[in-house]
Amino acid sequence: MSEATWVPRAEGSGFGLNHLPFGVFSRDGEAPRAGVRVGAYVLDLAPVLHDEAFAAPALNPFLARGRTAWAETRRRLRRLLSAEGAAADVAADRAAVEPHLIPLDQVTLHLPVEIADYVDFYCSLEHASNVGRIFRPDGEPLTRNWRHLPIGYHGRAGTVVVSGTPIPRPRGQRGPGDFGPCARLDIEAELAYVVGVPTALGSRPGPLEEHVFGVTLLNDWSARDIQAWETVPLGPFLGKSFATSISPWITPLEALEEARVEGRAQDPEPLEYLRRREPWGLDIAVEIVLNGTTVSRPAYRDMYWTPDQMLAHMTVNGASLRTGDVFASGTISGARREERGSLIELTWNGAEPVKLSEGDVRGFLEDGDTVTLRATAPGSGGERITLGEVSGTILPG
Amino acid sequence: MSEATWVPRAEGSGFGLNHLPFGVFSRDGEAPRAGVRVGAYVLDLAPVLHDEAFAAPALNPFLARGRTAWAETRRRLRRLLSAEGAAADVAADRAAVEPHLIPLDQVTLHLPVEIADYVDFYCSLEHASNVGRIFRPDGEPLTRNWRHLPIGYHGRAGTVVVSGTPIPRPRGQRGPGDFGPCARLDIEAELAYVVGVPTALGSRPGPLEEHVFGVTLLNDWSARDIQAWETVPLGPFLGKSFATSISPWITPLEALEEARVEGRAQDPEPLEYLRRREPWGLDIAVEIVLNGTTVSRPAYRDMYWTPDQMLAHMTVNGASLRTGDVFASGTISGARREERGSLIELTWNGAEPVKLSEGDVRGFLEDGDTVTLRATAPGSGGERITLGEVSGTILPG
Repeated sequence: MSEATWVPRAEGSGFGLNHLPFGVFSRDGEAPRAGVRVGAYVLDLAPVLHDEAFAAPALNPFLARGRTAWAETRRRLRRLLSAEGAAADVAADRAAVEPHLIPLDQVTLHLPVEIADYVDFYCSLEHASNVGRIFRPDGEPLTRNWRHLPIGYHGRAGTVVVSGTPIPRPRGQRGPGDFGPCARLDIEAELAYVVGVPTALGSRPGPLEEHVFGVTLLNDWSARDIQAWETVPLGPFLGKSFATSISPWITPLEALEEARVEGRAQDPEPLEYLRRREPWGLDIAVEIVLNGTTVSRPAYRDMYWTPDQMLAHMTVNGASLRTGDVFASGTISGARREERGSLIELTWNGAEPVKLSEGDVRGFLEDGDTVTLRATAPGSGGERITLGEVSGTILPG
Repeated sequence: MSEATWVPRAEGSGFGLNHLPFGVFSRDGEAPRAGVRVGAYVLDLAPVLHDEAFAAPALNPFLARGRTAWAETRRRLRRLLSAEGAAADVAADRAAVEPHLIPLDQVTLHLPVEIADYVDFYCSLEHASNVGRIFRPDGEPLTRNWRHLPIGYHGRAGTVVVSGTPIPRPRGQRGPGDFGPCARLDIEAELAYVVGVPTALGSRPGPLEEHVFGVTLLNDWSARDIQAWETVPLGPFLGKSFATSISPWITPLEALEEARVEGRAQDPEPLEYLRRREPWGLDIAVEIVLNGTTVSRPAYRDMYWTPDQMLAHMTVNGASLRTGDVFASGTISGARREERGSLIELTWNGAEPVKLSEGDVRGFLEDGDTVTLRATAPGSGGERITLGEVSGTILPG
């Protein structure tokens, strides 16, 4: 059985003692600082741990410390929050910690990390195949390189925003002489990895778990009409750079031990530098909710390229890592229609709208629409954990 | 006639009173801090201006202040360094300032800016046409969108390095099952713009000169074999992300007033948001030096898209700007062979090597090769200014 916390109603909420995701919060105009979510509370870390790194307005100083420090911090928090042990010890810990537990509805949540570089990959075989079929109906769905390397590109780090930030509809060129608000505004449900430990230029990183602190859900908002017109020959630019939303909560990799599965079989076998040494597939169940209606349930375990491979590829040319680098999986899409991770796939480029309720259908997003990504994963002791959700509402452009 | 400085041998060096580029330096293990170059000296700004913003290890705090502050700082520096005026005043200024003038050979120069997002454009008609002809010999040299918008993409901000940093030859995939050190290592001579004043998400910036503090030479090192294999469908990634070099010196836009020219004629006329309101072509003469031999002399004034258009495009979708954003022009190439800004163009993809000296030719870069970019521009009073050079030497991968 799983160890439990004394924090009221935390166990069973997806934010119990086996999860403890990290974020940045503020209250009443106080300075933003680090916290851990427990149930419907955020624990103010700096005073509880007597550690000024957590008084910073981003998790970066903590993330830079590395795996041993991450694990030790987690052990200390579990001890302080645990309901098990000698009654007097539990009572003493609770008395010391409880004053620093703040109800979530009293805080503002901020971007948890000062993002250094943001890279977006393209790791789902089904997503890449669907997009290929839509845009090149007469050609091979996958480009010739797709099965040989995880395709990726750099996105705009400065427009990564925290869940809840309104998303103004982007404007731009949609064709020769054609300018206006995006008419095909889309989402991409993704999982993003947050780098803690940096590397030097020209060096190679160690294993994933030595560098990556944790994961967060990410919505890669996409303006399909702007993207289609601009994308050849240098790739996506303004079709993506207007906004990317992430959850306020970073789930430590350590909390995902029970979610680890073998990565999906790969053919051809990848080159040596891309070989998997540990199972870094992740059994994370994702849900896409549009105005309250669940429109898709992609499974992250279906992804073709795993995060250890993304990290190895991103750095094989000698590129360095910085604390705060974020790399995302690309759209998570499964084989079945109800597992597709973007509207362009779900509606087959708008031709087959999804139904939200009687008489209410969507091809692409309308002003006022709210999209929420949610996810859960197996946690220790059979208790599932809930990743922090990411949500955004479209404003008129 | 131009006003002159009392700093020895500064006038005529390209770094006289009409230039004053900003950078970051350190001496003897002291902390990096801001300086201005005058002749063969760097002026330590914090003690001279009594302003702690210049004690920071990057120019960002100063850049964030905006155009009025930039101009005022420049006026103060010109006054302190000027040889004109009442003799007693000049002597007093010199006595106060001279102790803070440090010979360049006693300092280490650092990356001048903490770079936020790095965007690379593709603004030369001749470069885009040359690359198109090389890679698509049977098709149209330019993609269909090229004359309608300045094509761009995001590069890796974390691997932008200062001039003098050695460049390890990148390794990577060059085709199916083909892995190894880059065999077609190239340069791209570019001019980059450094953003000072940020904007909010969903807003639009004002005119270029309100946001951009200045310019720097940039070498966009490129692994052509890695790039060719990875680039479809999401654009350049590892073929560029291993390193990008910039000069340690940022030349203020204000010092380039005499270099401003009308931008090149454009057909078709750009959409309203891309219309030019001020002349932002720049008459900057660039020189590419490979192991001491000048191999090309591109002219920046030949560029098709001007920086005001790059800025307008980059933000038309609502993307915000941050202090420290850098956007680059893309390879500067002219119509003649000796004006091409990359080796892939100069050697027509290696087929026509360039001659460095008797018996010494290059298709692409060899280990130990040193590439230096230099540039000059008209300054006030008929005195040309010299942009800070950017140099790098290739190490074995």
